[in-house]
Amino acid sequence: MHADKDLTDSGIAAYMHGLGRAARAAARLMARADTATKNRALRAMAAAIRAQSAALVEANRLDLAKARAEGRDAAFVDRLTLDAAGIEKMARGVEQVAELPDPIGVISEVRKRPTGIQVGRMRVPLGVIGIIYESRPNVTADAAGLCLKSGNACILRGGSEAIHSNRAIAQAIAAGLAEAGLPHTAVQVVETTDRAAVGALITMPEYVDIIVPRGGKELIARLMREAKIPMIKHLDGICHVYIDDAADPDMAVRIADNAKTQRYGTCNTMETLLVAEAIAPAVLPRIAEVYRAKGVEMRGDDAARRLVPDMRAASEEDWRTEYLAPIVAVRVVRGLDEAIDHIETYGSKHTDAIVTANQAHADRFLREVDSASVMVNASTRFADGFEYGLGAEIGISNDKLHARGPVGLEGLTSQKYIVLGHGEVRA
Amino acid sequence: MHADKDLTDSGIAAYMHGLGRAARAAARLMARADTATKNRALRAMAAAIRAQSAALVEANRLDLAKARAEGRDAAFVDRLTLDAAGIEKMARGVEQVAELPDPIGVISEVRKRPTGIQVGRMRVPLGVIGIIYESRPNVTADAAGLCLKSGNACILRGGSEAIHSNRAIAQAIAAGLAEAGLPHTAVQVVETTDRAAVGALITMPEYVDIIVPRGGKELIARLMREAKIPMIKHLDGICHVYIDDAADPDMAVRIADNAKTQRYGTCNTMETLLVAEAIAPAVLPRIAEVYRAKGVEMRGDDAARRLVPDMRAASEEDWRTEYLAPIVAVRVVRGLDEAIDHIETYGSKHTDAIVTANQAHADRFLREVDSASVMVNASTRFADGFEYGLGAEIGISNDKLHARGPVGLEGLTSQKYIVLGHGEVRA
Repeated sequence: MHADKDLTDSGIAAYMHGLGRAARAAARLMARADTATKNRALRAMAAAIRAQSAALVEANRLDLAKARAEGRDAAFVDRLTLDAAGIEKMARGVEQVAELPDPIGVISEVRKRPTGIQVGRMRVPLGVIGIIYESRPNVTADAAGLCLKSGNACILRGGSEAIHSNRAIAQAIAAGLAEAGLPHTAVQVVETTDRAAVGALITMPEYVDIIVPRGGKELIARLMREAKIPMIKHLDGICHVYIDDAADPDMAVRIADNAKTQRYGTCNTMETLLVAEAIAPAVLPRIAEVYRAKGVEMRGDDAARRLVPDMRAASEEDWRTEYLAPIVAVRVVRGLDEAIDHIETYGSKHTDAIVTANQAHADRFLREVDSASVMVNASTRFADGFEYGLGAEIGISNDKLHARGPVGLEGLTSQKYIVLGHGEVRA
Repeated sequence: MHADKDLTDSGIAAYMHGLGRAARAAARLMARADTATKNRALRAMAAAIRAQSAALVEANRLDLAKARAEGRDAAFVDRLTLDAAGIEKMARGVEQVAELPDPIGVISEVRKRPTGIQVGRMRVPLGVIGIIYESRPNVTADAAGLCLKSGNACILRGGSEAIHSNRAIAQAIAAGLAEAGLPHTAVQVVETTDRAAVGALITMPEYVDIIVPRGGKELIARLMREAKIPMIKHLDGICHVYIDDAADPDMAVRIADNAKTQRYGTCNTMETLLVAEAIAPAVLPRIAEVYRAKGVEMRGDDAARRLVPDMRAASEEDWRTEYLAPIVAVRVVRGLDEAIDHIETYGSKHTDAIVTANQAHADRFLREVDSASVMVNASTRFADGFEYGLGAEIGISNDKLHARGPVGLEGLTSQKYIVLGHGEVRA
């Protein structure tokens, strides 16, 4: 089927159900594939990506031409571009997944019970993963690699803007699967660009076990309204750094600087700085100097503006805003309790940090701030699968259930109970 | 507010939102409550339940009178009854929860990263748990105890048939919370019996983090249609025992007997027996003899009926039926693959067992059968929180995400990432 082919909605639903059935069947074979076979497929995929480099660039050129013809901006074109370096990085990424330990089949927590049975847990794949993403074609290879290593089948639905690139990458993936004797239906790229395909993918729980959306807020909002399948979903990153009265001032300045300015557009960038009133006179003017030099606009409450007079006044809206830009909201708080209250009220449960030398304050912050990542004396920018040592990341979850924070291979698995007996029956 | 008070739907929604707001505020205090305080509350609850035994029996009498007046059957009245022994068991259950290790605040998997930061995980409460249950008033105390110990606030919505009993138990719970200085809003019993209260409870994700339904299929089906909040849901228990060709015949007979007849009405009772054709002549007639003696009706496929001629013919429907009764479906399969296929097609992902002395067959069954509990040489009846050593059970989950199988305290918690630094920033 081709992207340009005209299909009715029911035709698309039938097509998507076909992919679903095939994925479900492939998932059974993937669940029992051994580590060596999965790694062979991953390495063959990487080799095929490298071998087909010229064809990938050619396919990508078609997508780029369309994007330019449609007047897309430079950032969009940048995300869409696959050059030789990007292709090598993609291949290397797939090889790195091969090097990660295989989570599947690992048995843990085995305990002998008084009845004689042994009870433990075995890590198993989730089954079929649906990935919905936009523009960046490298997600096709990254996601396929992670799903394959974790013993899942997957259905990949990239954006229409990258359809030629995604199809070309899919051919390299198929070559890798074939070389290892794994079913080609273990990784399926949706061939139609019709939006109805997404609608079908997120409403067939009989075939798809979890949806991982990778895209902007509009995409996530639509999926949350319509999906009938659980999602690993990533919402806002309204991250805070709280400078406690017991903070080391130099450390406070360094972390406030890094958390805001090391990169502006990432979800783990600090958006609001909270400063205890006792330490604010000592640190806030110094931090303002750093921000001023880097062109970061400050928006503060009255107390902050008394210490830094050139600061704009913050509105209620500022506390709720993920700027993703060189803007920072600043608030002076009485102390730890007011900082935790502020984070509870305005935060997005993503990543929040305290700077303090007071162990009791650090402990309370760690325990009481209800976010996926909570940090002591470190920059929020560390909230990342690679920085955490997960090896690779399929996404970040703001949810509390199943997966929380950066999601690696483990987030694509489940644990079942296993019982090993010797003929025991219940009395 | 009283059960009999006439309220509009919007009045009920406002009432439920009030409970939600109060629960959310209580959840923050519960999250930081220390183990000793929580255990003191649990022991005080148990003491109050015992001290108010006469009042509980009296309140229960009102519910029983109404049930009898409405012509409810004996099983219904039995589930509803609270006698002195039941009250003591309820009190003891709450004390046992006090004796369980506190999961909250436990830090695990701490690793030092090359950047210098230490990354680990801390176990934390989910927040607010909504429990929706029917008839058995003891769930009020059991659920309150588990939610309290796991640092959560809860909203309990029992059936209208048990409203007097539930209110009386709620008073004992409130006494326990007060004695330990914990907020009385940590455990709230919904005071209205209007069904709209359930509708409100399951559609306020801003206040409720997870719903645990404990009831029949109709309740679960309604909640699945309407809920906007994740659920720990328990669907059918269509459990299988597969007697492999390499099974010990005596063990096979013993397990087939126990899995079916030890108790008929439980979700982990075997409903379908699968027997490898090579061993069927040796075991099936013996098993049939046991069932016949115990009055269990057998419904089999043609091959099974050739070996046990008095067996009724099974229909396609039988393979999909959770009898919860002295009836068993029997099928002869060629071997392991066909058994796994049958379970994949007709099972409910609850609990399935293999009887075999063949290690390779056992390993494949463990890995490939996609159920919450998978067993080797043990009766399916062991699939239970107490038998697994979880201490107590809030429910059983057929889902793969978050909690799978019997759900104890851990299922009411989440893990967040914690990062412990010394001023590290990202390069």
